[in-house]
Amino acid sequence: MEQTLKQTVAYLKTVNKVAILCHQSPDGDTLGCGFALWHALRQMGKQGKVFCSDPIGNKFSHLFTSYTEEAFTPETVICVDVADRKLLGNLSEQFPIVHFNIDHHPSNTFFAQKTYLEADAGSACEAMYRIFTEMDLVFTKEMANCLFTGLITDTGCFRFSSTRPFAHIMAADLMEKGADSTYLCRHFFGTKSKALLRLEALVMDTLTYHFKEKVALISVTTDMLKQSGATQDDYDVIASIPAQIEGVKIGITIKQREKNLFKLSVRTHDEYMANDICKRLGGGGHFRAAGCSIEGDLEKAKATILAVVENYIKEIDK
Amino acid sequence: MEQTLKQTVAYLKTVNKVAILCHQSPDGDTLGCGFALWHALRQMGKQGKVFCSDPIGNKFSHLFTSYTEEAFTPETVICVDVADRKLLGNLSEQFPIVHFNIDHHPSNTFFAQKTYLEADAGSACEAMYRIFTEMDLVFTKEMANCLFTGLITDTGCFRFSSTRPFAHIMAADLMEKGADSTYLCRHFFGTKSKALLRLEALVMDTLTYHFKEKVALISVTTDMLKQSGATQDDYDVIASIPAQIEGVKIGITIKQREKNLFKLSVRTHDEYMANDICKRLGGGGHFRAAGCSIEGDLEKAKATILAVVENYIKEIDK
Repeated sequence: MEQTLKQTVAYLKTVNKVAILCHQSPDGDTLGCGFALWHALRQMGKQGKVFCSDPIGNKFSHLFTSYTEEAFTPETVICVDVADRKLLGNLSEQFPIVHFNIDHHPSNTFFAQKTYLEADAGSACEAMYRIFTEMDLVFTKEMANCLFTGLITDTGCFRFSSTRPFAHIMAADLMEKGADSTYLCRHFFGTKSKALLRLEALVMDTLTYHFKEKVALISVTTDMLKQSGATQDDYDVIASIPAQIEGVKIGITIKQREKNLFKLSVRTHDEYMANDICKRLGGGGHFRAAGCSIEGDLEKAKATILAVVENYIKEIDK
Repeated sequence: MEQTLKQTVAYLKTVNKVAILCHQSPDGDTLGCGFALWHALRQMGKQGKVFCSDPIGNKFSHLFTSYTEEAFTPETVICVDVADRKLLGNLSEQFPIVHFNIDHHPSNTFFAQKTYLEADAGSACEAMYRIFTEMDLVFTKEMANCLFTGLITDTGCFRFSSTRPFAHIMAADLMEKGADSTYLCRHFFGTKSKALLRLEALVMDTLTYHFKEKVALISVTTDMLKQSGATQDDYDVIASIPAQIEGVKIGITIKQREKNLFKLSVRTHDEYMANDICKRLGGGGHFRAAGCSIEGDLEKAKATILAVVENYIKEIDK
């Protein structure tokens, strides 16, 4: 059942011994929300513990510098930034009942008993900030850093179309409350690893344009990944390059997984839909960013995706 | 003479037939300020004309969609975002007297008769926004777009350390007033020209690290610029690369202007100050981004800046 802000605040005052569940492949928003909520519960004299089915990346270590775990049997289960039960990964079995969910995905399936959904928010941390403000909690520097992290990682540092004026109002307030905004912006968006620079140089040699330069395609082999020492974070940056090129509407990145298995990332602009393209090859995702897999060698993978994209463009442009 | 906000507002009410002077190599901040001021003057029933010694890049064309020029003899000369008379280029001769300057550079030389300086602002557009707000002007969509352009281009889209909470407050307000924030963010920060990609590939081959990899240096020759077809905008992106590399504290870009004349861009982090480094070579600028010129060949330019930086690091680190 969907809850108002006031109902959410009233509910949070009643809970204790809270299991806070983040989504699998945890990002800055689910983790920022989770650890901010943990700090809030502590401030209210309650116990909490953050759970995630997957390991937390090193780049998020600043979120839990003062986090400590106490032993207790959870009485309440609260999800943060989780659109669907299946995104809980293996936590789903451990916590068959979810009492409350704080989220911002329009696709939320309302799998929890109660849900506070701010569907027009660019990040779940915006919903969490609104709750904390309504509760009159003191925003510590750590809470400000947690919420600022979710805010910037989910809005592309205020660049995505999901960035509302409210995101800026919140950013200003969190800065006043001690968020290390310069550090966090630089940490997540202003730094390139040396491995990424090496990988970029290798990958840019593979760049080709197709269909009146509407499409740009790059490929990343396992050899390139090994040679550069790049990580998944580096790869994510690489996969965003083709669609960033001026005039390109469909950007394709072909990444070798195994000798004859390729994972494709498709990013699109304007009237072209990445998930519509990837669906034709058995994949899926968001409107602007989707993926699929192709078996065979690199030349076959290229030919396959380009044939699909050529047909897709013809259909859209006609 | 430095002016308060109230004095500035009172002054602007008295002027007419205003020559608005932008700095040479015009960027989003000087142009955003200039055209926003032009709109403001029109709203007040006054005449204005924007001047710049250099051509305005295509990427700024959205700033003057409704700009029109009327013939008049200027009575008042107002500079925007101009730290020093010499940055006026050849306008300096045409306008020997500058009546007023609206700026945000701490290095401002107070060359104008009167100056409104907001030295802690990340952009001159923040000073202009404050003035317009104090004047109770109506912010049109066009004015909002002009000011949003200066705000994001001078703060690296809210990422630079010069970004104050006020920048976010202003961003939220400009969005409410109709600024095309998503378009502008993508236009200035989410798109790479093909020329830039070519230039990046050429320049990355020149990357060297120095002094325990605290310093990264790249160089850009006129040949590379010609070969890639890159513009000044592309160059600005290139100049930000060295300081973005993980662990690098001082990033240096050496750009060839003429056969034996090089322009250096220095960007720094933490305790290292770009303007302190550039001052030693007769240049200047901001704490984190400054520049200077060196005569001689490329090897001499490299050796000169590296010797200065080596000494500077020793002094700071001791």
